[in-house]
Amino acid sequence: MTDKSIDKGRILLAPTGWSTELWIDELAKAAPDRAVTLEPEGETDPSIHYAVVWKQRKGLLSKLPNLKVIFSLGAGVDHVFSDTSLPDVPIVRVVSPDLTTRMSEYVVWQVLDHHRLGPHYRAQQADRIWLEDKDQAAAADITVGIMGLGELGSDAAAKLQVMGFKVSGWSRTQKQVEGVACHAGPEGLDAFLASADIFVVLLPLTPDTSEILNRDVFSKMTKRGPLGAPVLINAGRGGLQNETDILSALDEGLLSAVSLDVFQQEPLPPESLFWAHPKVTLTPHAAASSVASSLIVPIVRQMDAYERGEPLVNLVDRKTGY
Amino acid sequence: MTDKSIDKGRILLAPTGWSTELWIDELAKAAPDRAVTLEPEGETDPSIHYAVVWKQRKGLLSKLPNLKVIFSLGAGVDHVFSDTSLPDVPIVRVVSPDLTTRMSEYVVWQVLDHHRLGPHYRAQQADRIWLEDKDQAAAADITVGIMGLGELGSDAAAKLQVMGFKVSGWSRTQKQVEGVACHAGPEGLDAFLASADIFVVLLPLTPDTSEILNRDVFSKMTKRGPLGAPVLINAGRGGLQNETDILSALDEGLLSAVSLDVFQQEPLPPESLFWAHPKVTLTPHAAASSVASSLIVPIVRQMDAYERGEPLVNLVDRKTGY
Repeated sequence: MTDKSIDKGRILLAPTGWSTELWIDELAKAAPDRAVTLEPEGETDPSIHYAVVWKQRKGLLSKLPNLKVIFSLGAGVDHVFSDTSLPDVPIVRVVSPDLTTRMSEYVVWQVLDHHRLGPHYRAQQADRIWLEDKDQAAAADITVGIMGLGELGSDAAAKLQVMGFKVSGWSRTQKQVEGVACHAGPEGLDAFLASADIFVVLLPLTPDTSEILNRDVFSKMTKRGPLGAPVLINAGRGGLQNETDILSALDEGLLSAVSLDVFQQEPLPPESLFWAHPKVTLTPHAAASSVASSLIVPIVRQMDAYERGEPLVNLVDRKTGY
Repeated sequence: MTDKSIDKGRILLAPTGWSTELWIDELAKAAPDRAVTLEPEGETDPSIHYAVVWKQRKGLLSKLPNLKVIFSLGAGVDHVFSDTSLPDVPIVRVVSPDLTTRMSEYVVWQVLDHHRLGPHYRAQQADRIWLEDKDQAAAADITVGIMGLGELGSDAAAKLQVMGFKVSGWSRTQKQVEGVACHAGPEGLDAFLASADIFVVLLPLTPDTSEILNRDVFSKMTKRGPLGAPVLINAGRGGLQNETDILSALDEGLLSAVSLDVFQQEPLPPESLFWAHPKVTLTPHAAASSVASSLIVPIVRQMDAYERGEPLVNLVDRKTGY
């Protein structure tokens, strides 16, 4: 686009599937002294120093000789790694208080909607039925199990505890989170699955977690809870879930209900059985949809810090893939 | 019923409209040494010392010579005062952490359901529409206004702040609640109504608050919010609301949506226009439906304390009516 301050190097912006105008505007506001382009000038464009990406085209970044940092526009970075020809430069995930707050809103909202019998009361309203259902469980009698205890999982855990729920958690490596019964690794999975009544999934999508939400896992989830069978809430990635297994688990009663914000294929195809399933609440990958400015500002701040010689933060580990 | 320990005086139990068996069982568990009856032996039964009531029959309590305390089975006591022949003995409202927690669950649940566009996304799901709606407001840009800042309102205010919302409040007398912009009295009402985007009503029903939720009040609520027009959530009493005014305010856009847990007439009659109104979420007076034990245990504890000569707590003020 414009060609200001070429000295700082240009920013390559690749927000596939999103409005590019929006992101250009936000970059112009947050970094008026930086030049932005949507396409390199040839495969080896030396003017590009930074890439700000969401699902960038495969090969787009591979040969840029002066690329210094790749910034992901999402908290998850599986969309970056789906390009296997990535150059060996640091990858930074976005961490923004706004995004964290919104994800915790979604988690608390959906946990409460199941705990407080939202689908049941909406069905009663549609049928003009007034039944008071005095015997709702207390939050203190329900454990919410969080899969993934990073920035997002830890914040959700704290807020769920404020609402009165017990919280357990599971992560790749052992974590310590205030008030949370933490389990870790493949060896800790069975105990975790037996520990909770409502499961909230905020895992990164990696080869280890691909389709981790499958029939085997559902069958190990506790069935003793006040909701009869466990509730599954996935706000991580669609690739974490085996969708055939979710549907059969719902129909067989291994799961009592699910809230899904993410899907193997997005947009969810019109013929999907999820749309009309009475035990499915779905949202269109909107759990933590931030305003663009709240993502761009911390990215530009990191560019500035990097140029002052300060270390990058929220770096992605290429070995673990998140 | 049984006739244990007549010395302590009998408990008259009058839970009109609820299962009496349930309450008898809970009293038997919590106070095995106390005798309970559902009906006095004549108008002037001297054996009755306590009344535990929900909407007791008019005149039931008026002539009992040894009645010492009336315990309300609800946090609100308007149902007690609807009997104008009440004897002049202390009236105690129930305050239980369980009831408070459940009411705050309902408040946070419904605030989030509107803030996070629950009705919109459920309609999209029904129509198999995938639209991401990137421009949701941040919680920090929304003010929740709480009418009634007692036990319940204060707890809800704290939890809404944890979720990221700004909170304002209104009460009869000036209150100080952490982080809440507090308004008071008739002279503070207009400023309060201009301060918030989502209004949560937890007021007691008294002559002063009867039908306070009316067209005049709706027209003074701010229309500047991200939701377009204000949202009303009433978990107090149906008598607080003018239902004709609510319906016309919804249809004219003075209100964008309402969540109602209480109604002028309960159960809500099948012909009510609320059932099928697309901007109405209704629940059957279930916002804070506690398990019986969590209400009975603090009542029995107060009987014990009273007999040891300790002061009663959570007393109702007859002058203000709550």
